[in-house]
Amino acid sequence: MSDTIRVVVWNEFIHERQNRVAQEIYPDGIHEALANGLRNRLAGGVNVQTATLDETDHGLPQDLLEQPDVMLWWGHLAHDQVEDAVVTRVVERIWQGMGFIALHSAHLAKVFRKLMGTSCSLRWRDAGERERLWIVDPSHPIVDGVPFDSIDLPETEMYGEFFDIPTPEELVMISWFEGGEVFRSACTFRRGKGKVFYFRPGHETFPIYHNESIQHVLANAVRWATPCGASYESDCRQIESPS
Amino acid sequence: MSDTIRVVVWNEFIHERQNRVAQEIYPDGIHEALANGLRNRLAGGVNVQTATLDETDHGLPQDLLEQPDVMLWWGHLAHDQVEDAVVTRVVERIWQGMGFIALHSAHLAKVFRKLMGTSCSLRWRDAGERERLWIVDPSHPIVDGVPFDSIDLPETEMYGEFFDIPTPEELVMISWFEGGEVFRSACTFRRGKGKVFYFRPGHETFPIYHNESIQHVLANAVRWATPCGASYESDCRQIESPS
Amino acid sequence: MSDTIRVVVWNEFIHERQNRVAQEIYPDGIHEALANGLRNRLAGGVNVQTATLDETDHGLPQDLLEQPDVMLWWGHLAHDQVEDAVVTRVVERIWQGMGFIALHSAHLAKVFRKLMGTSCSLRWRDAGERERLWIVDPSHPIVDGVPFDSIDLPETEMYGEFFDIPTPEELVMISWFEGGEVFRSACTFRRGKGKVFYFRPGHETFPIYHNESIQHVLANAVRWATPCGASYESDCRQIESPS
Amino acid sequence: MSDTIRVVVWNEFIHERQNRVAQEIYPDGIHEALANGLRNRLAGGVNVQTATLDETDHGLPQDLLEQPDVMLWWGHLAHDQVEDAVVTRVVERIWQGMGFIALHSAHLAKVFRKLMGTSCSLRWRDAGERERLWIVDPSHPIVDGVPFDSIDLPETEMYGEFFDIPTPEELVMISWFEGGEVFRSACTFRRGKGKVFYFRPGHETFPIYHNESIQHVLANAVRWATPCGASYESDCRQIESPS
Repeated sequence: MSDTIRVVVWNEFIHERQNRVAQEIYPDGIHEALANGLRNRLAGGVNVQTATLDETDHGLPQDLLEQPDVMLWWGHLAHDQVEDAVVTRVVERIWQGMGFIALHSAHLAKVFRKLMGTSCSLRWRDAGERERLWIVDPSHPIVDGVPFDSIDLPETEMYGEFFDIPTPEELVMISWFEGGEVFRSACTFRRGKGKVFYFRPGHETFPIYHNESIQHVLANAVRWATPCGASYESDCRQIESPS
Repeated sequence: MSDTIRVVVWNEFIHERQNRVAQEIYPDGIHEALANGLRNRLAGGVNVQTATLDETDHGLPQDLLEQPDVMLWWGHLAHDQVEDAVVTRVVERIWQGMGFIALHSAHLAKVFRKLMGTSCSLRWRDAGERERLWIVDPSHPIVDGVPFDSIDLPETEMYGEFFDIPTPEELVMISWFEGGEVFRSACTFRRGKGKVFYFRPGHETFPIYHNESIQHVLANAVRWATPCGASYESDCRQIESPS
Repeated sequence: MSDTIRVVVWNEFIHERQNRVAQEIYPDGIHEALANGLRNRLAGGVNVQTATLDETDHGLPQDLLEQPDVMLWWGHLAHDQVEDAVVTRVVERIWQGMGFIALHSAHLAKVFRKLMGTSCSLRWRDAGERERLWIVDPSHPIVDGVPFDSIDLPETEMYGEFFDIPTPEELVMISWFEGGEVFRSACTFRRGKGKVFYFRPGHETFPIYHNESIQHVLANAVRWATPCGASYESDCRQIESPS
Repeated sequence: MSDTIRVVVWNEFIHERQNRVAQEIYPDGIHEALANGLRNRLAGGVNVQTATLDETDHGLPQDLLEQPDVMLWWGHLAHDQVEDAVVTRVVERIWQGMGFIALHSAHLAKVFRKLMGTSCSLRWRDAGERERLWIVDPSHPIVDGVPFDSIDLPETEMYGEFFDIPTPEELVMISWFEGGEVFRSACTFRRGKGKVFYFRPGHETFPIYHNESIQHVLANAVRWATPCGASYESDCRQIESPS
C-alpha cells in the first residue's frame, strides 16, 4: 500500500451544466465536490485527480489509468456514451487491484454492470423523501467513526428493492425511505484483486455530497478500497507439479 | 428426505393464558394457529405436533426429540425458564440436521442465542406500526410463490437494527417500519447439518399468524428446513491416510 | 415449479469428433452422456434436449430458449465461436430465472464470464491426477444423498487456485489434487432470479460423466437450479408512493 | 483505532512444560514465540502481553480484559479447565469489539465454540505431512504482502474437512495436505462488533510459529482484528419514534 492514495473521481458532468439546481449545489461539478471532500478528510495522504466524459478518452487514457489506487464513478444521463474500450480498460484495472466506488445512479454504469453480471435495475421515485441509512455491520472499516446507529438525510431521491445485484459480499447499510421502501445502500464486492463499493446516496439536485457523514463514509471507503493483499498473476496458465 | 415432514411447534404458551387480547386472537394458543396453518398448507405431506413450556421436559423429552424434521419456536416472557438440558438437546439435534425456525421474540431464546454466538439484541417499539417486508432474494425457495415485491402487515411491533446476529448466510427479506426503522427479518443460517431460519413477523396481540402470506412463507420455510444433504459424522476423529 | 423439469444440455461437440480418446469415451458426444445421466436419474420428472455449436443459432434460437428451466453448458476449444447475440439471450434468460450449470472448462465460456464479471482464470495441469472432492456444506441439496465425506476420481485434469471468480454465495465442495493443489469445485451464485452452479469435474479424455457420484450430483443440481421464488419484474421503473 | 495496538497472547502452556520436543522448539512457551513475532513485525505499533492457564483468573482478570484490542488464543489439552466465568468475560469483550484470533487446536476452545454455535469438530492425523496453504482471497488485508500463491509448510499435523463451523464470512486460505485432505484454514467471522479469525497452522511439536510467512500473516491478522467501526450500543432497548 503506497503512503499516498492516488484517487481519480470520474463524472459525466452533464447535469451541472444543464440543470440550474444542480449548478447551484455543485457549481464546479459533482467531481470537484467529491474530490474536495476527500482532500480535506484524507489531507496529506491522498492525491485526487478528476476526469470527465467530454475529455479525450473520457479523461482516462491508458497511461493515466495505470496510476490510481481507487476510482470513484458518477454517471446518470450518459452511460451509453462511455466507450466500450474505456470500460474494458477500467474493468481490467479493477481486476488487477484498483478499488472502484460506484455512486448513486452509477448502478447502471457500464463498468458497474460488467462487474456485477446482472441487470442492476431497481425501483425509484424522485419526491424529496427523508432517508435513514441504518448500519448493519458496525465493525466495518467503511463506517469507522460514524457516531450513530444511522445517517439521516432530509431530502433524497428514493431507490427501492428489488435491487438486481449479486448478493453483496458485505452489506454495511440499509436505507429506510419515508414513502415505504428499503434499499441495500452500502454494499461491497470483490472482483479479481479489486475491491468494489456501491454507495447509494447522492443526487444532482440535493446537496448530499456536502453532507459531513457522507463525506466521512466516502473517505473511509477510499481507504478500504486501496489495493492490498497477496501478489498473484491472474492469467490462466499451465503449471508443473511441485518437485 | 422423508415423504411426510414431521414438525414440532414449540410455544411457551403464557401470553395466551394471561392477556385477553392474545387470548382472543389465539384462543388455542399461538402453537395451534401455527400448527393449523402448516397442516392446511402442507396437507398430506406433514405431521405437526405441538409442545409447550409447562409440559414435562417442556414437551421435548429425548425420545420425542429424535423424531422431528423441523422445529418452530415461539417464546417471549420465559426464555430463562427453559432448562439448559433441554436447550442442549435441541441444539444437538439441530447440529445433526433438524431444521429450526425461530419466530419473532425467539431472537432471545436460549436455543437461538446458542446457535448464533452473539447477544441477538435489537431495538423495539410496540406501537402498532405498519410493516412492509421487502424481498431481496427473489429466487429463494422460502419466498416461492409469493406474488408481490413485498408483504404488508397493517399493525406490528417494530424491531429495528442493529440486530446483533452473525451476518446471515442468506438475507431473504428486509422490513420497513412506519416509524423510521429497517430490520433483517428473514435470515438463514446453517449450524452443523441443520438449517436455521429466523423470521421476524408475529406478536401475541396482532393476528399475524392468521395472515395468508405469513402462513405461506412458514410452509415454504418448513419445506426448506427439512433435512437433506450428504451423510457425515460430526465427531472429532483421527483418520488414516488413504491407501 | 413445473412438474417436469425442462433441461437443455449444450455442448460445443468438437473434441468428440476430433480426438480418438474422447470419441471412445463419449461416442455420441458429451451432451448425450450428460443427457442420459439426467434422464435415468430424474426419470419421469425431466425432459432433456441437447444443442450444439454447429446447429443454427448454436441450437438455441429464441423460441427454444423460452422453454428450459435449466441449461447445462460444456465448452472448451471454441468459446470465441459462440455468437454474442446468443450469449446475451442466454444471460437474459438466466436473469429471468433459468438455472445454469457451467461444467469444467466452461469456466471460460462467454456466458459464465459475463455472469461472473471476473476473468475466471485458473491454474491447470493435464497429468491424469487423482482428485478428491471434499464436501464442506453437508446440508446442501446439491449433495443430497451423497454417502461419503468425499467423492474420489482416479484420473483427472488438475484445476488449481487462484480461481478468479467472485466469492461464491455457497461453497459446496473443495477438490484436493495429487500434485499439490486445491480448487473450489462446486460453487453457487445467483444472478437476477437465476441460480448458477459451477461444477469442476469433467474432461473430454476421462470418463467422468459416466461416474455414478458425478451423475448423482448433476441430477441434484438440476433440481436445485429449477426456477422458484417470488414473482417480480426486473426492469428499472418509477413507482408511486403507497397510498 | 488507537495508535498502539494492545495485544494479549493466551496460552494454556502445558505441552511446553511436559513434552521435550515442544520444549526445544518453544523453550519460553508458544505464547512467547507468538508475542515476539508480533513485537518484531509490528515494532513500535504494538504492546503485547501474555497470559496463561495457571495464573489467577487464567491471567485474564476483568480489569486486564478491558485493555486489549486483540487476543490470540492457543489451547489444546486443557480446554475444559478454562473457567466458564472467564469464557463469558472474553466472549462479551469480543461482542464489544475486541478482536479474537483462534489458533490451531483452539478450534475446540470454549470461547471459540461459544462464538461459533457449532461442534467445531474436524478430522485429524499427526503424521508430519506437508501442507500448502492456498490463497483464495488475494485482496484480503490478512494476506497483504504475502509474495506467493501459497505458503508451504514441510511438516504439519493434518486437519481435514468436514470442519463443523458456520460458513465463514470470508475464506482466505485453503490447505492441501500430502495425505489427501483439504481444510478451510484461514476463516473470518464477525460476532457483535468483534472480528474473529481462525488460523489453522501451529502445533506444539513443529516450529510453525517460527516460520516467517506464518508470523507475517499473524501480524496482518492482528492489524485486521483491531477494533474499528461505528459506535453503537448492543443492549436490547425500547426506542421512541423519530420526531
